Amino acid sequence: MNKFQKLRKMINGDKIVKVIGAHDGLSAKIGEEAGFDAVWASGLCISAVNRVPDASILTMTDYLNAAIVMDESCNLPIIADCDSGFGNVHNAIRMVKKYEAAGIAGVCIEDKVYPKMNSFVNNNQKLIPIDDFCVKIKAIKENQLNPEFVLIARTESLIAKLGQDEAYKRAKAYSKHGADAILIHSKSPNSQEVEEFINRWDEETPIVVVPTMYPDKTYEEFERIGAKVVIYANHGLRASMKAITQTYNSIISNKSTLHLENKICTVKDVLEIQEVPEMIDLEKRLYSEVRGGDEK
Amino acid sequence: MNKFQKLRKMINGDKIVKVIGAHDGLSAKIGEEAGFDAVWASGLCISAVNRVPDASILTMTDYLNAAIVMDESCNLPIIADCDSGFGNVHNAIRMVKKYEAAGIAGVCIEDKVYPKMNSFVNNNQKLIPIDDFCVKIKAIKENQLNPEFVLIARTESLIAKLGQDEAYKRAKAYSKHGADAILIHSKSPNSQEVEEFINRWDEETPIVVVPTMYPDKTYEEFERIGAKVVIYANHGLRASMKAITQTYNSIISNKSTLHLENKICTVKDVLEIQEVPEMIDLEKRLYSEVRGGDEK
Amino acid sequence: MNKFQKLRKMINGDKIVKVIGAHDGLSAKIGEEAGFDAVWASGLCISAVNRVPDASILTMTDYLNAAIVMDESCNLPIIADCDSGFGNVHNAIRMVKKYEAAGIAGVCIEDKVYPKMNSFVNNNQKLIPIDDFCVKIKAIKENQLNPEFVLIARTESLIAKLGQDEAYKRAKAYSKHGADAILIHSKSPNSQEVEEFINRWDEETPIVVVPTMYPDKTYEEFERIGAKVVIYANHGLRASMKAITQTYNSIISNKSTLHLENKICTVKDVLEIQEVPEMIDLEKRLYSEVRGGDEK
Amino acid sequence: MNKFQKLRKMINGDKIVKVIGAHDGLSAKIGEEAGFDAVWASGLCISAVNRVPDASILTMTDYLNAAIVMDESCNLPIIADCDSGFGNVHNAIRMVKKYEAAGIAGVCIEDKVYPKMNSFVNNNQKLIPIDDFCVKIKAIKENQLNPEFVLIARTESLIAKLGQDEAYKRAKAYSKHGADAILIHSKSPNSQEVEEFINRWDEETPIVVVPTMYPDKTYEEFERIGAKVVIYANHGLRASMKAITQTYNSIISNKSTLHLENKICTVKDVLEIQEVPEMIDLEKRLYSEVRGGDEK
Repeated sequence: MNKFQKLRKMINGDKIVKVIGAHDGLSAKIGEEAGFDAVWASGLCISAVNRVPDASILTMTDYLNAAIVMDESCNLPIIADCDSGFGNVHNAIRMVKKYEAAGIAGVCIEDKVYPKMNSFVNNNQKLIPIDDFCVKIKAIKENQLNPEFVLIARTESLIAKLGQDEAYKRAKAYSKHGADAILIHSKSPNSQEVEEFINRWDEETPIVVVPTMYPDKTYEEFERIGAKVVIYANHGLRASMKAITQTYNSIISNKSTLHLENKICTVKDVLEIQEVPEMIDLEKRLYSEVRGGDEK
Repeated sequence: MNKFQKLRKMINGDKIVKVIGAHDGLSAKIGEEAGFDAVWASGLCISAVNRVPDASILTMTDYLNAAIVMDESCNLPIIADCDSGFGNVHNAIRMVKKYEAAGIAGVCIEDKVYPKMNSFVNNNQKLIPIDDFCVKIKAIKENQLNPEFVLIARTESLIAKLGQDEAYKRAKAYSKHGADAILIHSKSPNSQEVEEFINRWDEETPIVVVPTMYPDKTYEEFERIGAKVVIYANHGLRASMKAITQTYNSIISNKSTLHLENKICTVKDVLEIQEVPEMIDLEKRLYSEVRGGDEK
Repeated sequence: MNKFQKLRKMINGDKIVKVIGAHDGLSAKIGEEAGFDAVWASGLCISAVNRVPDASILTMTDYLNAAIVMDESCNLPIIADCDSGFGNVHNAIRMVKKYEAAGIAGVCIEDKVYPKMNSFVNNNQKLIPIDDFCVKIKAIKENQLNPEFVLIARTESLIAKLGQDEAYKRAKAYSKHGADAILIHSKSPNSQEVEEFINRWDEETPIVVVPTMYPDKTYEEFERIGAKVVIYANHGLRASMKAITQTYNSIISNKSTLHLENKICTVKDVLEIQEVPEMIDLEKRLYSEVRGGDEK
Repeated sequence: MNKFQKLRKMINGDKIVKVIGAHDGLSAKIGEEAGFDAVWASGLCISAVNRVPDASILTMTDYLNAAIVMDESCNLPIIADCDSGFGNVHNAIRMVKKYEAAGIAGVCIEDKVYPKMNSFVNNNQKLIPIDDFCVKIKAIKENQLNPEFVLIARTESLIAKLGQDEAYKRAKAYSKHGADAILIHSKSPNSQEVEEFINRWDEETPIVVVPTMYPDKTYEEFERIGAKVVIYANHGLRASMKAITQTYNSIISNKSTLHLENKICTVKDVLEIQEVPEMIDLEKRLYSEVRGGDEK
């Protein structure tokens, strides 16, 4: 079963799909080892490790390369956060061709104007007309080669304070034109707003939630209320940022790293997650087989 | 003073230069905020976030792009770990042209064969003949356009267990052919081996140390014994790896992120280090000035 | 004199600046050998060799990489065709930082919406409001580090059939907010339209023309009527496309390349423009100097 | 039938496979239109358009990106010239993973040391030991996921003047360890040398020829003597280089492009090979379908 099939099967399955936000290959791999089901190639996090705002400053090339690194680094399918699809319908078509050809199992696009601004920033969040977004959805679905490739349509109606009716109306249209899942985004401090949307939802199309601002519910509770995918979008990045800050500050103040040695991973840990031992073994085996003559 | 001039001035100054290893733009910026003098674009760490061994698996393109991101992300000069120079003398020339044109203030190359294996791996560590390495050094120095661009020549003589005499002989030759600094690498569990080398050193060329395996001395002590640069090469990465692992495991076991909120950076912290507020202010000012007509 | 200074000096000089459109490093180098003054990193041509429409399908990363290859390949300054600046004012700022840091001596942006469509396509060509474009210009000029970096502001007023008055009004505003030159684009079958614009122009800001559709005037004539820069934007690409087509067809029909050998460059020609002989000589000299001991 | 299957079927078919060397997406597409069966992503040509020697100066990233552009640009399978595999066995494994994941249907590696020098350069051409090359072959075959992915092993025995026996011995070993085809390279001024090799060949593994230096035979004749694949590796590049040179020189001497208009492709030709008309039609249809409500 390839990664496209894996992701499709999970999205259509009974259990909630637990997705971990990653910012590079290492965090993606740690997500796999921790037991997550898929990786979210987070626009916010990829922007952050490049130290630029999450505002369409990086190019599609940058985001795609980051997603490819994650895909190479672990056995989980990758869902790429593709912002507003990098421009108009033609950019969205370019996107699906490039991402799918590179092996990325799914993408998510949102109904904001391009260039976008991160949803947690309190400025004017403008949506594009429904028709424009439906055209993007339709074009993406027509251009995917692999039937299992997943397109998540994300509505920012609640972020833009347009209300539940607008969110519902848009989600219906996106679903009708081919979206494989609907991501309902919210920055409300609790999950009530999202719950209201889910309760009203009357289509088969699965619902995705991103409880960054409303961490009050467990993923089991989200499963119970009918969500199909939960994305923990940026916690690894935020943990990493804190740990690096503390570590660097402590080197400056302690003037050595002696006190750190038991608090951080060892060099051996790093070599192991890089699979250096496997690499050395492989070389030995190959030479032994070629020299021993036992080829296939 | 541009970054080339900054780095050159520090290397020729009186105080020890404290260099922090980084793996992306965010860690480079945190290094600047913590008070380091320069950033080490670490081959081990860049490989690790791509989840591949530090064994010339990534290409020069990958390493250069990572160094550029760090350079864009902070105000410190970047010293790029360029392994064995990516091949022969012609690859080393290509390297200096590309790195210098991209604004990277200095590079470090080591006298191992290409492809290389990370120095902390206990396998056969083979050095190239002295002449071959001196040719690379000479070629790099001839091809740099900016007189302040810094070339650090790293000898792996002690890593390869060739002894102090070989290390001294090589360092002398590298210095004679133009190296701006000598990095003496060691994986001895204490700094004695490195200290012996420094005591014997009778050239003006500054010495660089990387106390990963021998954290027993402070940077003030390294300064006292005559080292000019100290690189804390991979502690940020190792802190990050531990923090991400703990965070991801705790999400799986706690089934939500509620318990994490006070242990990790906030989304606001992330937006701030991305300089989102400055971005919004800038846009306002520009529009106001253009509309108000007060142009330059 | 670096490339930034070269370009600035030419633009401010007395003679018309002859710029050749290139699509890769080889065509840029041939432009230098033919005697042109600068290279136009043409959006149309770079798109064409990637076989995509000139409609913001390639990303800024793709265009920048193509410009860098040209810059590395020849001694001429590069003027990069940057379409509408890759998005809004923040994308334009990202652009100037990236292009200037990479050594590109100048860029040109046009007042069309993003994503853009090539000007020779007969569809709806929409311009952005003057203020929005002036904000981009102002932001670019504020963010360039090198005083000689050149920003060309291109108005598509005539392409969009908005008339001479609009073209004049826009060009005045762009000039006032900092543009170093004005490109007046036209697809009229003769140069009359462009001439009318130039005759009316009453600012010092130099004028750039692109006589793709109106090849009726020589560059000496353009100089006489007051243009400062002439760009032959895509003729190399179009010659190349024809030659490759004929060559490939003839291999299929003749079933060998015997008949072609005198019609195309030799392999030796290719090796020479790649500077292979110089590469071999350099290696010999370096080894001889290191072994002979005569280092600097 | 995907491109992997197409290439495999051709290699195992009865007719000679006619492969055209390309240097970018446009030349690949023209190769398809002319009637070739596959595209050779030529190391010499990709180096040439980057204006660097064909001597492992570009990185695997550069070569891979060029191959991806060709693959996106046409419907033919791509065979990527991968030089000596970019380093040792681990680099070769990285290569197969990256190229195959990117959709490249086949690769060719040669038994020269890394970094390599182009075969037509008259300097010392050194081969690696047979075992080292067999290990690379075996590793590549073990790591490909797609059974149809094609590995061509190229021996430079004749280029290195090691004689027919060495060529035969190496080809046998490469075939035994899994190579899907053998490329026998020669720079003899006629095809006799290659013919002698083919006559002696007693394995099923198909033979590939590259008649750059010996254009005396047609592809039908190569088919008759038993070759399975013929690669016209660099004629498009050489035609292009000549045409661009003549065009640029003529602009300088004629001072306009008026005389050129009938000798080169039109702008309309360029827009058509970029599929601009299809792009505009597609947008119209999508909007009409979404607005008309007839979604899938």
